[in-house]
Amino acid sequence: MKPEKIILFESSLRDGAQARGITFSLPDKLKMVAMLDELGMDYIEAGNPASNPKERAFFEAAAGLPLKNSRLTAFGATCRKQTRPDDDPGVLALLSAGTPAVAIFGKAWDLHVTHVLGATLDENLQMIRDTVAFFKERGREVIFDAEHFFDGYRCNREYALAALEAAADGGAACLTLCDTNGGALPWDVEAAVTDVCGRTAVTVGIHAHNDGELAVANTLTAVRAGARHVQGTLLGFGERCGNARLTSVIPNLELKMGLTAVGAERLSTLSDRALEAADIANLAPDDKLPYVGRDAFAHKGGMHIDGVSKVPRSFEHVEPALVGNRRGFMLSEVAGRSALSLKLQAQFPQLSRDSETTRTLIEKLKELENEGFSYEGAESSFELVVRRHLGLYRPSFELTHYKVMDEPNGMPGSLGAYAVVKVDVRGEQRMAAADGNGPVNALDKALREALSNYFPELSRVSLSDYKVRVLDTRDATAARVRVVIQSTDGRSTWSTLGVSPDVIEASLQALIDSIEYKLLSSGSETV
Amino acid sequence: MKPEKIILFESSLRDGAQARGITFSLPDKLKMVAMLDELGMDYIEAGNPASNPKERAFFEAAAGLPLKNSRLTAFGATCRKQTRPDDDPGVLALLSAGTPAVAIFGKAWDLHVTHVLGATLDENLQMIRDTVAFFKERGREVIFDAEHFFDGYRCNREYALAALEAAADGGAACLTLCDTNGGALPWDVEAAVTDVCGRTAVTVGIHAHNDGELAVANTLTAVRAGARHVQGTLLGFGERCGNARLTSVIPNLELKMGLTAVGAERLSTLSDRALEAADIANLAPDDKLPYVGRDAFAHKGGMHIDGVSKVPRSFEHVEPALVGNRRGFMLSEVAGRSALSLKLQAQFPQLSRDSETTRTLIEKLKELENEGFSYEGAESSFELVVRRHLGLYRPSFELTHYKVMDEPNGMPGSLGAYAVVKVDVRGEQRMAAADGNGPVNALDKALREALSNYFPELSRVSLSDYKVRVLDTRDATAARVRVVIQSTDGRSTWSTLGVSPDVIEASLQALIDSIEYKLLSSGSETV
Repeated sequence: MKPEKIILFESSLRDGAQARGITFSLPDKLKMVAMLDELGMDYIEAGNPASNPKERAFFEAAAGLPLKNSRLTAFGATCRKQTRPDDDPGVLALLSAGTPAVAIFGKAWDLHVTHVLGATLDENLQMIRDTVAFFKERGREVIFDAEHFFDGYRCNREYALAALEAAADGGAACLTLCDTNGGALPWDVEAAVTDVCGRTAVTVGIHAHNDGELAVANTLTAVRAGARHVQGTLLGFGERCGNARLTSVIPNLELKMGLTAVGAERLSTLSDRALEAADIANLAPDDKLPYVGRDAFAHKGGMHIDGVSKVPRSFEHVEPALVGNRRGFMLSEVAGRSALSLKLQAQFPQLSRDSETTRTLIEKLKELENEGFSYEGAESSFELVVRRHLGLYRPSFELTHYKVMDEPNGMPGSLGAYAVVKVDVRGEQRMAAADGNGPVNALDKALREALSNYFPELSRVSLSDYKVRVLDTRDATAARVRVVIQSTDGRSTWSTLGVSPDVIEASLQALIDSIEYKLLSSGSETV
Repeated sequence: MKPEKIILFESSLRDGAQARGITFSLPDKLKMVAMLDELGMDYIEAGNPASNPKERAFFEAAAGLPLKNSRLTAFGATCRKQTRPDDDPGVLALLSAGTPAVAIFGKAWDLHVTHVLGATLDENLQMIRDTVAFFKERGREVIFDAEHFFDGYRCNREYALAALEAAADGGAACLTLCDTNGGALPWDVEAAVTDVCGRTAVTVGIHAHNDGELAVANTLTAVRAGARHVQGTLLGFGERCGNARLTSVIPNLELKMGLTAVGAERLSTLSDRALEAADIANLAPDDKLPYVGRDAFAHKGGMHIDGVSKVPRSFEHVEPALVGNRRGFMLSEVAGRSALSLKLQAQFPQLSRDSETTRTLIEKLKELENEGFSYEGAESSFELVVRRHLGLYRPSFELTHYKVMDEPNGMPGSLGAYAVVKVDVRGEQRMAAADGNGPVNALDKALREALSNYFPELSRVSLSDYKVRVLDTRDATAARVRVVIQSTDGRSTWSTLGVSPDVIEASLQALIDSIEYKLLSSGSETV
């Protein structure tokens, strides 16, 4: 018998963006949507088009994305009190996002209706019914988010249920019970979800926050009680303490509860997707994350390691490979090496696994990794390092000197940021200078200027992303930074990195790798 | 009626120290013990005296600590197979720790007995019984940790129960059911704990790991099913994904389940204790922690902020002061004018909500926000902007010129990164220069050097965090960056920001704000 499917609704770009420290640029958002689609999310909630012009620009850009698994979903409120939906600017903005699905939130707690909205209880029910119906009539699939449902259910059960009924009457495809304040206990969730599921034929959903550290438990409990639609964010980002973390919810559903969410094949990519999501959000990966964190299957005590090697299942709640993670032993770095070796063989099949070359190459890569050169998200720099080591490539040019100067903009006599570079190309020396918006921009321009006569193909290259992450904040401004640059020539994109205590030097390493990689792939290198 | 007391068993210094990245020095451990005693932990599990000499030195030092609330507890295994307790070096080391209580772990899963220990099932029961009795006879209170209890209960219920019975026969004061692999589900915990509690008069305990992100839920569920002894670590440190986090468990027990754990007065110090524990472990505080994190009661969305100001309980699951935390309003692109206005009034009560000054100030702040000056996480820069606008503050110094130069490190004749600054303090001009690990570090040092004669209090200030975020990656190296700096003078910390396309200029703005804020709060400003 096929396991029952649980519908997944991912909200990193909406509820996740409510978290302190999380902001997404437009390219970040598009990258996240593509990744979540690949992972098999059923719905991707991507923002509130009424909130600001940036959101509207995103929905315009996203309309053209070819999604295989996901329905793009815009989020918004019911119409205001004493306003018809077709007269409400928020509702109209939501409609104009043009998404196949919309998530509409409405009040399910009487206290909120009277004291926050200042509406009557009946008015609120009508606002819910009319707004849902408005979207339904215009061909949208409507997910109704019953805000503060569990608080409402506790204080005035009849009214909370009436709010759901109004949404169902309007034609909602799903009634999501939201623990907006995140304070519900699992047994309260169980009782309420059981009650609701016994009273409606519409799909019931759960939206849990983590204020009691119970978001995952509340989500699983709701599913056990009959909910079939689960909202959350992949890494648990969300307002205050966050939302239900889908990297924990999904494996629990699939591996512990006998249900299906993304299926075994996509589940085995979950750890990589988690790294990708952290990278897009410009956050360091959290090693302690259940299932997908680097430490989730890392054994430290000697006794544990001994036990694991005797009977793996005796010390691990699931097989790490099922979620794309791997067992680690903290006393040795064996796991890291074998992973590197696998990666190398995939890219360079000519490398034999046990050769001296492979061994010294892995030593070199481990050493670089310890210095902060983590090649996750900078595959092109990884390839260059390997090629250099194997003698498969020689640099097309050498930067023999540079000097960057920076003075305050707009001061009399100041030049702002400017850079001088000197390069050696095939034995010829060439200097160039440029100013820019900042020191890195100035260097980038000067470098291209110096190389333009030799490598005209560089004129098509531009930088499409630039990320800076501080690696070790204990030394503050003297800490090392990791710069990752994404470049494009209009057809393909590639990513390179640099690491240094000096942000300019780190950027320069990434810029040089970016140029070298382009020249390598267009066949211009002077080997 | 007095609420029922739940016994707390804290293991940061034992299970917590198994986590990657956690090590405690001897003074750290003593500081932690004193703090946990103050917080009202009933047991402090502080290490395994058999594991290394450092642990033995600690127990010697700890023996003299005057504890008010806690019993110091040493941790160790049952005797080995075919060895009598009084002949087992591990058991004797544990005894010599001289603690009033000991925690003894033994196998409750038959698979472990036969495949990992290589003992017979009967031998293992005897090892448990004899070891517990050995300590009991020597005046120790014995807490028995039934390792892998829930896996054992699933695979061979009779045997798992027999292991508990052996410990009870030996005289154990508590039978702790351990989810050693951290993979149990709440309903399985509920069934097993209910079963055990129905069969024994001995106190039942719960020890949960977080591998399924369910440690807190499993702990609460066990208590609901009859367990009265709870093991965990204050901040959730522990092997792999960690242990049940007591900063979440305790408030849930006290504020949601009507039980008592540390009592209301100590509960109101919990957020401070959490900061202290992070400090002792040398970890940055986790802002997202339920109940005690800085973001736990921080409201971001404009609508939420509006609601909280109308009816606080409508948007908060508990009153922040009950756990020693406080409400915060975050400023962000999604925060509306009412959020800004509330924040202003909280900090500057003299501002009337609708005055012309407030209106233009809010305009100014919204404008800055559009330029990328999001004051989220940079409260001190926010305060400076407001004070400047209100004429409540004049700068202590002016940076009249700077020049930053950067050349490759290690090249002959190169100086690396260096900076020259010129400042005007009370009409006096002063220049200074410094080199550094990078341009920002060089500027920081030069600026402090130039100001050191005038403001000696700056010598105590150091930068504790430095974050760079690219605001709009579409223009890549010409994009604007947002720099946030956290500074500390050893007693308090403050955060400031700068925004510019030039990372050096952005850093400089944040550095200047940091210095100005320090001078403002120490009263040195030349108003």
